[in-house]
Amino acid sequence: MTQSTQTPSPSQALAGLGLVLPPAPKPVASYVPCVRTGNLLFISGQLPFRDGALLATGLVPDPVSLDRAQEAARQCILNGLAVVAGECGGSLDRVARIVRLGVFVASCGNFTEQPKVANGASDLLQQIFGESGRHARAAVGTNALPLGASVEIEMLVELR
Amino acid sequence: MTQSTQTPSPSQALAGLGLVLPPAPKPVASYVPCVRTGNLLFISGQLPFRDGALLATGLVPDPVSLDRAQEAARQCILNGLAVVAGECGGSLDRVARIVRLGVFVASCGNFTEQPKVANGASDLLQQIFGESGRHARAAVGTNALPLGASVEIEMLVELR
Amino acid sequence: MTQSTQTPSPSQALAGLGLVLPPAPKPVASYVPCVRTGNLLFISGQLPFRDGALLATGLVPDPVSLDRAQEAARQCILNGLAVVAGECGGSLDRVARIVRLGVFVASCGNFTEQPKVANGASDLLQQIFGESGRHARAAVGTNALPLGASVEIEMLVELR
Repeated sequence: MTQSTQTPSPSQALAGLGLVLPPAPKPVASYVPCVRTGNLLFISGQLPFRDGALLATGLVPDPVSLDRAQEAARQCILNGLAVVAGECGGSLDRVARIVRLGVFVASCGNFTEQPKVANGASDLLQQIFGESGRHARAAVGTNALPLGASVEIEMLVELR
Repeated sequence: MTQSTQTPSPSQALAGLGLVLPPAPKPVASYVPCVRTGNLLFISGQLPFRDGALLATGLVPDPVSLDRAQEAARQCILNGLAVVAGECGGSLDRVARIVRLGVFVASCGNFTEQPKVANGASDLLQQIFGESGRHARAAVGTNALPLGASVEIEMLVELR
Repeated sequence: MTQSTQTPSPSQALAGLGLVLPPAPKPVASYVPCVRTGNLLFISGQLPFRDGALLATGLVPDPVSLDRAQEAARQCILNGLAVVAGECGGSLDRVARIVRLGVFVASCGNFTEQPKVANGASDLLQQIFGESGRHARAAVGTNALPLGASVEIEMLVELR
Protein backbone atom coordinates (compact mmCIF):
# COMPACT_ATOMS: atom_id res chain seq x y z
CA MET A 1 0.00 0.00 0.00
CA THR A 2 1.39 3.40 -0.90
CA GLN A 3 1.38 6.06 1.77
CA SER A 4 1.53 9.75 1.03
CA THR A 5 3.98 11.81 3.05
CA GLN A 6 0.94 13.39 4.72
CA THR A 7 -0.23 10.07 6.13
CA PRO A 8 2.72 7.96 7.19
CA SER A 9 2.00 4.40 8.24
CA PRO A 10 2.10 3.72 11.99
CA SER A 11 5.49 2.07 11.51
CA GLN A 12 6.78 5.14 9.67
CA ALA A 13 5.34 7.42 12.35
CA LEU A 14 7.08 5.41 15.07
CA ALA A 15 10.38 5.68 13.22
CA GLY A 16 9.81 9.39 12.68
CA LEU A 17 9.36 9.80 16.42
CA GLY A 18 12.63 7.98 16.98
CA LEU A 19 10.82 5.19 18.80
CA VAL A 20 11.42 1.48 18.57
CA LEU A 21 8.93 -1.05 19.90
CA PRO A 22 10.34 -3.25 22.65
CA PRO A 23 10.27 -7.04 22.25
CA ALA A 24 6.76 -8.39 22.76
CA PRO A 25 6.40 -9.55 26.35
CA LYS A 26 6.17 -13.30 26.87
CA PRO A 27 3.05 -14.91 28.34
CA VAL A 28 3.23 -14.90 32.13
CA ALA A 29 1.44 -17.45 34.27
CA SER A 30 -2.11 -18.28 33.24
CA TYR A 31 -2.94 -15.12 31.40
CA VAL A 32 -1.73 -13.93 28.04
CA PRO A 33 -0.66 -10.58 26.61
CA CYS A 34 -3.75 -10.31 24.41
CA VAL A 35 -6.84 -12.10 23.23
CA ARG A 36 -8.53 -11.58 19.88
CA THR A 37 -12.26 -12.01 19.46
CA GLY A 38 -13.61 -11.11 16.03
CA ASN A 39 -11.81 -7.93 15.00
CA LEU A 40 -11.25 -6.82 18.58
CA LEU A 41 -7.92 -7.30 20.32
CA PHE A 42 -7.97 -6.99 24.11
CA ILE A 43 -4.50 -6.23 25.48
CA SER A 44 -3.64 -7.01 29.09
CA GLY A 45 -2.84 -4.18 31.48
CA GLN A 46 0.67 -2.92 30.72
CA LEU A 47 3.18 -1.63 33.24
CA PRO A 48 5.90 0.88 32.35
CA PHE A 49 8.71 -1.62 31.94
CA ARG A 50 11.72 -0.46 29.93
CA ASP A 51 14.70 -2.75 29.50
CA GLY A 52 13.37 -4.98 32.26
CA ALA A 53 12.87 -2.33 34.94
CA LEU A 54 9.90 -0.16 35.83
CA LEU A 55 10.30 3.42 34.66
CA ALA A 56 8.37 4.81 37.62
CA THR A 57 7.24 3.35 40.93
CA GLY A 58 5.26 5.06 43.67
CA LEU A 59 2.45 7.55 43.86
CA VAL A 60 1.94 10.60 41.69
CA PRO A 61 2.82 13.45 42.21
CA ASP A 62 5.03 12.49 45.14
CA PRO A 63 7.48 10.83 44.75
CA VAL A 64 6.74 10.53 41.03
CA SER A 65 6.34 13.84 39.20
CA LEU A 66 3.60 14.45 36.64
CA ASP A 67 6.24 14.57 33.90
CA ARG A 68 7.65 11.25 34.94
CA ALA A 69 4.20 9.70 35.13
CA GLN A 70 3.44 10.89 31.59
CA GLU A 71 6.64 9.25 30.42
CA ALA A 72 5.57 6.07 32.19
CA ALA A 73 2.20 6.24 30.42
CA ARG A 74 4.00 6.49 27.07
CA GLN A 75 6.05 3.44 27.96
CA CYS A 76 2.91 1.46 28.81
CA ILE A 77 1.62 2.26 25.33
CA LEU A 78 4.86 1.19 23.65
CA ASN A 79 4.67 -2.08 25.53
CA GLY A 80 1.04 -2.55 24.55
CA LEU A 81 1.81 -1.82 20.92
CA ALA A 82 4.60 -4.39 21.07
CA VAL A 83 1.91 -6.89 22.02
CA VAL A 84 -0.22 -5.76 19.09
CA ALA A 85 2.72 -6.05 16.70
CA GLY A 86 3.53 -9.48 18.10
CA GLU A 87 -0.02 -10.55 17.28
CA CYS A 88 0.13 -9.06 13.79
CA GLY A 89 3.36 -10.43 12.36
CA GLY A 90 5.54 -7.63 13.66
CA SER A 91 3.69 -4.68 12.17
CA LEU A 92 1.19 -2.12 13.43
CA ASP A 93 -0.26 -1.56 10.00
CA ARG A 94 -3.25 -3.83 10.58
CA VAL A 95 -4.54 -1.58 13.36
CA ALA A 96 -7.83 -0.12 12.18
CA ARG A 97 -8.56 1.85 15.32
CA ILE A 98 -7.47 2.30 18.89
CA VAL A 99 -10.87 1.82 20.55
CA ARG A 100 -10.39 2.29 24.28
CA LEU A 101 -7.79 2.87 26.97
CA GLY A 102 -8.21 2.07 30.65
CA VAL A 103 -5.66 4.17 32.52
CA PHE A 104 -4.90 3.59 36.20
CA VAL A 105 -2.67 6.10 37.97
CA ALA A 106 -1.21 5.35 41.42
CA SER A 107 -2.24 8.55 43.12
CA CYS A 108 -1.78 10.48 46.31
CA GLY A 109 -5.21 11.16 47.77
CA ASN A 110 -5.14 14.79 46.71
CA PHE A 111 -3.91 14.20 43.16
CA THR A 112 -6.58 14.96 40.59
CA GLU A 113 -4.67 15.28 37.31
CA GLN A 114 -5.00 11.71 36.13
CA PRO A 115 -6.15 13.02 32.71
CA LYS A 116 -2.81 14.80 32.24
CA VAL A 117 -0.97 11.58 33.00
CA ALA A 118 -3.19 9.74 30.54
CA ASN A 119 -2.51 12.38 27.89
CA GLY A 120 1.02 11.00 27.72
CA ALA A 121 -0.55 7.83 26.37
CA SER A 122 -3.23 9.47 24.25
CA ASP A 123 -0.95 11.98 22.57
CA LEU A 124 1.51 9.27 21.59
CA LEU A 125 -1.25 7.16 20.05
CA GLN A 126 -2.41 10.09 17.98
CA GLN A 127 1.15 10.78 16.87
CA ILE A 128 1.54 7.19 15.73
CA PHE A 129 -1.89 6.47 14.26
CA GLY A 130 -3.35 9.87 13.44
CA GLU A 131 -7.15 9.93 13.46
CA SER A 132 -7.23 6.15 13.94
CA GLY A 133 -5.36 6.62 17.20
CA ARG A 134 -8.07 8.73 18.82
CA HIS A 135 -9.84 6.58 21.39
CA ALA A 136 -12.37 6.45 24.17
CA ARG A 137 -10.74 6.52 27.56
CA ALA A 138 -11.35 6.07 31.26
CA ALA A 139 -8.62 7.48 33.51
CA VAL A 140 -8.84 6.95 37.26
CA GLY A 141 -6.64 7.01 40.32
CA THR A 142 -5.84 4.14 42.62
CA ASN A 143 -3.88 3.69 45.83
CA ALA A 144 -1.80 0.71 44.70
CA LEU A 145 -0.68 -0.95 41.46
CA PRO A 146 1.21 -4.16 40.67
CA LEU A 147 4.91 -4.10 41.59
CA GLY A 148 4.45 -0.55 42.81
CA ALA A 149 4.14 0.81 39.26
CA SER A 150 2.93 4.38 38.93
CA VAL A 151 0.77 3.69 35.87
CA GLU A 152 -1.03 0.72 34.34
CA ILE A 153 -2.82 0.90 30.98
CA GLU A 154 -5.00 -1.60 29.19
CA MET A 155 -5.92 -1.21 25.53
CA LEU A 156 -8.66 -2.33 23.20
CA VAL A 157 -7.76 -2.29 19.51
CA GLU A 158 -9.76 -2.96 16.37
CA LEU A 159 -7.84 -4.81 13.66
CA ARG A 160 -8.65 -4.87 9.99
CA MET B 1 -41.98 3.78 14.48
CA THR B 2 -45.07 3.85 16.60
CA GLN B 3 -44.68 3.48 20.33
CA SER B 4 -47.46 2.33 22.58
CA THR B 5 -48.03 4.32 25.74
CA GLN B 6 -46.74 1.28 27.65
CA THR B 7 -43.33 1.50 26.00
CA PRO B 8 -42.31 5.10 25.50
CA SER B 9 -39.22 5.71 23.41
CA PRO B 10 -36.09 6.67 25.34
CA SER B 11 -36.60 10.26 24.24
CA GLN B 12 -40.18 10.20 25.52
CA ALA B 13 -39.04 8.61 28.77
CA LEU B 14 -36.44 11.32 29.26
CA ALA B 15 -39.07 13.99 28.70
CA GLY B 16 -41.43 12.20 31.07
CA LEU B 17 -38.73 12.32 33.73
CA GLY B 18 -38.35 16.04 33.16
CA LEU B 19 -34.79 15.52 32.00
CA VAL B 20 -33.01 17.21 29.13
CA LEU B 21 -29.74 15.93 27.76
CA PRO B 22 -26.87 18.41 28.07
CA PRO B 23 -24.96 19.47 24.95
CA ALA B 24 -22.61 16.70 23.81
CA PRO B 25 -19.15 17.36 25.21
CA LYS B 26 -16.49 18.38 22.72
CA PRO B 27 -13.43 16.23 22.07
CA VAL B 28 -10.66 17.08 24.52
CA ALA B 29 -6.99 16.56 23.77
CA SER B 30 -6.11 13.32 22.00
CA TYR B 31 -9.03 11.25 23.07
CA VAL B 32 -12.62 11.43 21.96
CA PRO B 33 -16.00 11.13 23.68
CA CYS B 34 -16.76 7.78 22.06
CA VAL B 35 -15.56 5.25 19.54
CA ARG B 36 -17.78 2.92 17.55
CA THR B 37 -16.61 -0.50 16.45
CA GLY B 38 -19.22 -2.65 14.75
CA ASN B 39 -22.43 -2.14 16.71
CA LEU B 40 -20.61 -1.34 19.94
CA LEU B 41 -20.15 2.22 21.12
CA PHE B 42 -17.50 2.75 23.80
CA ILE B 43 -18.08 5.99 25.72
CA SER B 44 -15.23 7.67 27.57
CA GLY B 45 -15.38 7.94 31.34
CA GLN B 46 -17.84 10.68 32.25
CA LEU B 47 -17.57 13.07 35.18
CA PRO B 48 -20.60 14.66 36.86
CA PHE B 49 -20.37 17.99 35.09
CA ARG B 50 -23.54 20.08 35.06
CA ASP B 51 -23.53 23.50 33.45
CA GLY B 52 -19.77 23.46 33.38
CA ALA B 53 -19.13 22.63 37.04
CA LEU B 54 -18.74 19.34 38.86
CA LEU B 55 -21.82 18.38 40.84
CA ALA B 56 -19.78 16.64 43.54
CA THR B 57 -16.11 16.63 44.45
CA GLY B 58 -14.40 14.74 47.24
CA LEU B 59 -14.76 11.37 48.87
CA VAL B 60 -17.99 9.56 49.69
CA PRO B 61 -19.55 9.58 52.28
CA ASP B 62 -17.55 12.46 53.73
CA PRO B 63 -17.68 15.19 52.58
CA VAL B 64 -20.02 13.95 49.84
CA SER B 65 -23.18 12.21 51.07
CA LEU B 66 -24.52 9.03 49.53
CA ASP B 67 -27.50 10.96 48.20
CA ARG B 68 -25.27 13.50 46.55
CA ALA B 69 -23.08 10.79 45.06
CA GLN B 70 -26.14 9.10 43.56
CA GLU B 71 -27.12 12.41 42.00
CA ALA B 72 -23.60 12.70 40.61
CA ALA B 73 -23.90 9.20 39.15
CA ARG B 74 -27.12 10.21 37.42
CA GLN B 75 -25.38 13.24 35.95
CA CYS B 76 -22.54 11.07 34.61
CA ILE B 77 -25.17 9.00 32.80
CA LEU B 78 -26.88 12.07 31.34
CA ASN B 79 -23.51 13.26 30.06
CA GLY B 80 -22.76 9.84 28.60
CA LEU B 81 -26.15 9.71 26.91
CA ALA B 82 -25.47 13.13 25.44
CA VAL B 83 -22.41 11.58 23.82
CA VAL B 84 -24.53 8.72 22.49
CA ALA B 85 -27.10 11.12 21.11
CA GLY B 86 -24.35 13.21 19.54
CA GLU B 87 -23.14 10.09 17.74
CA CYS B 88 -26.67 9.16 16.63
CA GLY B 89 -27.99 12.33 15.10
CA GLY B 90 -29.39 13.72 18.32
CA SER B 91 -31.60 10.82 19.34
CA LEU B 92 -31.29 7.90 21.75
CA ASP B 93 -33.69 5.77 19.77
CA ARG B 94 -30.94 3.78 18.04
CA VAL B 95 -29.77 2.38 21.37
CA ALA B 96 -30.39 -1.36 21.27
CA ARG B 97 -28.97 -2.11 24.70
CA ILE B 98 -26.94 -0.60 27.48
CA VAL B 99 -24.30 -3.33 27.74
CA ARG B 100 -21.96 -2.40 30.57
CA LEU B 101 -21.16 0.33 33.08
CA GLY B 102 -17.83 0.81 34.81
CA VAL B 103 -18.52 2.88 37.93
CA PHE B 104 -15.70 4.40 39.98
CA VAL B 105 -16.58 6.02 43.29
CA ALA B 106 -14.07 8.22 45.14
CA SER B 107 -14.33 6.54 48.53
CA CYS B 108 -13.23 6.93 52.10
CA GLY B 109 -11.39 3.76 53.11
CA ASN B 110 -14.31 2.51 55.16
CA PHE B 111 -17.02 3.22 52.58
CA THR B 112 -18.48 0.05 51.13
CA GLU B 113 -21.73 1.16 49.52
CA GLN B 114 -20.43 1.77 46.02
CA PRO B 115 -23.34 -0.32 44.65
CA LYS B 116 -25.84 2.15 46.11
CA VAL B 117 -24.03 5.01 44.42
CA ALA B 118 -24.04 3.08 41.15
CA ASN B 119 -27.77 2.45 41.51
CA GLY B 120 -28.26 6.14 40.82
CA ALA B 121 -26.91 5.42 37.36
CA SER B 122 -28.53 2.03 36.86
CA ASP B 123 -32.01 3.08 37.97
CA LEU B 124 -31.96 6.06 35.63
CA LEU B 125 -30.98 3.88 32.69
CA GLN B 126 -33.83 1.51 33.39
CA GLN B 127 -36.24 4.44 33.67
CA ILE B 128 -35.13 5.72 30.29
CA PHE B 129 -34.66 2.48 28.33
CA GLY B 130 -36.75 -0.10 30.18
CA GLU B 131 -35.50 -3.66 29.74
CA SER B 132 -32.92 -2.46 27.21
CA GLY B 133 -31.42 -0.30 29.91
CA ARG B 134 -30.53 -3.20 32.19
CA HIS B 135 -26.78 -3.73 32.00
CA ALA B 136 -23.78 -5.57 33.36
CA ARG B 137 -21.85 -3.46 35.83
CA ALA B 138 -18.65 -3.25 37.80
CA ALA B 139 -18.71 -0.75 40.68
CA VAL B 140 -15.54 -0.15 42.67
CA GLY B 141 -14.05 2.41 45.00
CA THR B 142 -10.94 4.48 44.44
CA ASN B 143 -8.95 7.02 46.42
CA ALA B 144 -8.76 9.69 43.71
CA LEU B 145 -10.56 10.69 40.52
CA PRO B 146 -9.91 13.33 37.85
CA LEU B 147 -10.51 16.92 38.97
CA GLY B 148 -11.52 15.59 42.37
CA ALA B 149 -14.83 14.25 41.04
CA SER B 150 -16.75 11.94 43.36
CA VAL B 151 -17.88 9.61 40.58
CA GLU B 152 -16.71 8.60 37.12
CA ILE B 153 -18.71 6.29 34.84
CA GLU B 154 -17.85 4.73 31.52
CA MET B 155 -20.48 3.09 29.33
CA LEU B 156 -20.66 0.48 26.62
CA VAL B 157 -23.72 0.67 24.39
CA GLU B 158 -24.99 -1.54 21.59
CA LEU B 159 -26.56 0.35 18.71
CA ARG B 160 -28.97 -1.04 16.18
CA MET C 1 -19.39 -33.94 20.91
CA THR C 2 -16.90 -36.55 22.06
CA GLN C 3 -14.13 -35.49 24.37
CA SER C 4 -10.85 -37.36 24.67
CA THR C 5 -9.50 -37.97 28.15
CA GLN C 6 -6.75 -35.46 27.30
CA THR C 7 -9.23 -32.65 26.78
CA PRO C 8 -12.04 -32.87 29.30
CA SER C 9 -14.96 -30.55 28.81
CA PRO C 10 -15.14 -27.57 31.19
CA SER C 11 -17.87 -29.38 33.11
CA GLN C 12 -15.69 -32.46 33.43
CA ALA C 13 -12.73 -30.35 34.47
CA LEU C 14 -14.82 -28.69 37.17
CA ALA C 15 -15.92 -32.06 38.48
CA GLY C 16 -12.34 -33.30 38.36
CA LEU C 17 -11.32 -30.35 40.51
CA GLY C 18 -14.03 -31.24 42.99
CA LEU C 19 -15.79 -27.96 42.31
CA VAL C 20 -19.49 -27.34 41.97
CA LEU C 21 -20.86 -24.10 40.55
CA PRO C 22 -23.01 -22.16 42.98
CA PRO C 23 -26.57 -21.22 42.00
CA ALA C 24 -26.59 -18.38 39.49
CA PRO C 25 -27.07 -15.12 41.37
CA LYS C 26 -30.41 -13.39 40.88
CA PRO C 27 -30.65 -9.98 39.24
CA VAL C 28 -30.22 -7.23 41.82
CA ALA C 29 -31.73 -3.80 41.44
CA SER C 30 -31.47 -2.27 37.98
CA TYR C 31 -28.50 -4.15 36.72
CA VAL C 32 -28.24 -7.75 35.65
CA PRO C 33 -25.66 -10.51 36.10
CA CYS C 34 -24.67 -10.45 32.42
CA VAL C 35 -25.47 -8.98 29.05
CA ARG C 36 -24.86 -10.67 25.73
CA THR C 37 -24.07 -8.69 22.60
CA GLY C 38 -23.22 -10.77 19.55
CA ASN C 39 -20.98 -13.58 20.77
CA LEU C 40 -19.67 -11.55 23.70
CA LEU C 41 -21.01 -12.04 27.21
CA PHE C 42 -20.22 -9.26 29.68
CA ILE C 43 -20.48 -10.48 33.28
CA SER C 44 -21.02 -8.02 36.12
CA GLY C 45 -18.32 -7.59 38.75
CA GLN C 46 -18.44 -10.59 41.07
CA LEU C 47 -17.73 -10.56 44.79
CA PRO C 48 -16.39 -13.60 46.68
CA PHE C 49 -19.73 -14.75 48.06
CA ARG C 50 -19.90 -18.37 49.20
CA ASP C 51 -23.08 -19.70 50.73
CA GLY C 52 -24.38 -16.18 51.14
CA ALA C 53 -21.38 -14.69 52.97
CA LEU C 54 -18.26 -12.98 51.73
CA LEU C 55 -15.20 -15.21 51.88
CA ALA C 56 -12.87 -12.29 52.60
CA THR C 57 -13.41 -8.69 53.66
CA GLY C 58 -10.81 -6.04 54.26
CA LEU C 59 -7.51 -5.03 52.73
CA VAL C 60 -4.77 -7.33 51.46
CA PRO C 61 -2.33 -8.34 52.96
CA ASP C 62 -3.60 -7.12 56.33
CA PRO C 63 -6.00 -8.31 57.63
CA VAL C 64 -6.54 -10.58 54.60
CA SER C 65 -3.56 -12.76 53.69
CA LEU C 66 -2.40 -13.28 50.12
CA ASP C 67 -3.53 -16.90 50.31
CA ARG C 68 -6.97 -15.91 51.46
CA ALA C 69 -7.23 -13.27 48.74
CA GLN C 70 -6.34 -15.86 46.10
CA GLU C 71 -9.10 -18.09 47.44
CA ALA C 72 -11.47 -15.14 47.23
CA ALA C 73 -10.41 -14.56 43.62
CA ARG C 74 -11.22 -18.20 42.84
CA GLN C 75 -14.65 -17.77 44.40
CA CYS C 76 -15.32 -14.68 42.27
CA ILE C 77 -14.60 -16.80 39.21
CA LEU C 78 -16.90 -19.61 40.34
CA ASN C 79 -19.65 -17.06 40.84
CA GLY C 80 -19.00 -15.55 37.43
CA LEU C 81 -19.06 -18.96 35.79
CA ALA C 82 -22.36 -19.66 37.50
CA VAL C 83 -23.68 -16.59 35.68
CA VAL C 84 -22.30 -17.91 32.40
CA ALA C 85 -23.87 -21.32 32.97
CA GLY C 86 -27.16 -19.66 33.89
CA GLU C 87 -27.08 -17.88 30.54
CA CYS C 88 -26.19 -21.07 28.65
CA GLY C 89 -28.73 -23.59 29.87
CA GLY C 90 -26.68 -24.74 32.83
CA SER C 91 -23.50 -25.73 31.01
CA LEU C 92 -20.11 -24.12 30.41
CA ASP C 93 -19.56 -26.03 27.21
CA ARG C 94 -20.60 -23.14 24.98
CA VAL C 95 -17.71 -21.02 26.22
CA ALA C 96 -15.39 -20.46 23.27
CA ARG C 97 -12.89 -18.29 25.10
CA ILE C 98 -12.37 -16.38 28.30
CA VAL C 99 -11.47 -13.01 26.77
CA ARG C 100 -10.72 -10.62 29.60
CA LEU C 101 -10.69 -10.30 33.38
CA GLY C 102 -10.81 -7.04 35.30
CA VAL C 103 -9.46 -7.78 38.79
CA PHE C 104 -9.77 -5.28 41.63
CA VAL C 105 -7.94 -6.04 44.87
CA ALA C 106 -8.68 -4.05 48.05
CA SER C 107 -5.10 -3.18 48.94
CA CYS C 108 -3.05 -1.65 51.69
CA GLY C 109 -1.08 1.23 50.20
CA ASN C 110 2.16 -0.75 50.21
CA PHE C 111 0.72 -3.95 48.72
CA THR C 112 1.98 -4.55 45.19
CA GLU C 113 1.22 -8.22 44.56
CA GLN C 114 -2.16 -7.80 42.92
CA PRO C 115 -0.99 -10.11 40.10
CA LYS C 116 -0.51 -12.96 42.57
CA VAL C 117 -4.03 -12.46 43.86
CA ALA C 118 -5.33 -12.43 40.30
CA ASN C 119 -3.45 -15.65 39.56
CA GLY C 120 -5.93 -17.40 41.82
CA ALA C 121 -8.54 -16.51 39.23
CA SER C 122 -6.41 -17.05 36.15
CA ASP C 123 -5.03 -20.42 37.19
CA LEU C 124 -8.52 -21.73 37.92
CA LEU C 125 -9.76 -20.64 34.51
CA GLN C 126 -6.90 -22.44 32.81
CA GLN C 127 -7.60 -25.56 34.88
CA ILE C 128 -11.23 -25.51 33.80
CA PHE C 129 -10.95 -24.39 30.17
CA GLY C 130 -7.38 -25.23 29.14
CA GLU C 131 -6.06 -23.02 26.35
CA SER C 132 -9.51 -21.43 25.94
CA GLY C 133 -9.24 -20.22 29.52
CA ARG C 134 -6.17 -18.09 28.93
CA HIS C 135 -7.26 -14.48 28.90
CA ALA C 136 -6.18 -10.85 28.80
CA ARG C 137 -6.21 -9.28 32.22
CA ALA C 138 -5.95 -6.01 34.08
CA ALA C 139 -5.24 -6.35 37.81
CA VAL C 140 -5.17 -3.23 39.97
CA GLY C 141 -5.43 -2.23 43.60
CA THR C 142 -8.09 -0.07 45.18
CA ASN C 143 -8.75 1.34 48.63
CA ALA C 144 -12.38 0.20 48.93
CA LEU C 145 -14.72 -2.35 47.37
CA PRO C 146 -18.45 -3.04 47.70
CA LEU C 147 -19.51 -4.51 51.05
CA GLY C 148 -15.88 -4.45 52.12
CA ALA C 149 -14.98 -7.36 49.83
CA SER C 150 -11.28 -8.03 49.33
CA VAL C 151 -11.61 -8.84 45.64
CA GLU C 152 -13.99 -8.02 42.79
CA ILE C 153 -13.65 -9.56 39.33
CA GLU C 154 -15.50 -8.85 36.11
CA MET C 155 -15.31 -11.20 33.14
CA LEU C 156 -15.74 -11.01 29.39
CA VAL C 157 -16.48 -14.31 27.69
CA GLU C 158 -16.85 -15.28 24.05
CA LEU C 159 -19.57 -17.85 23.40
CA ARG C 160 -19.82 -20.12 20.40
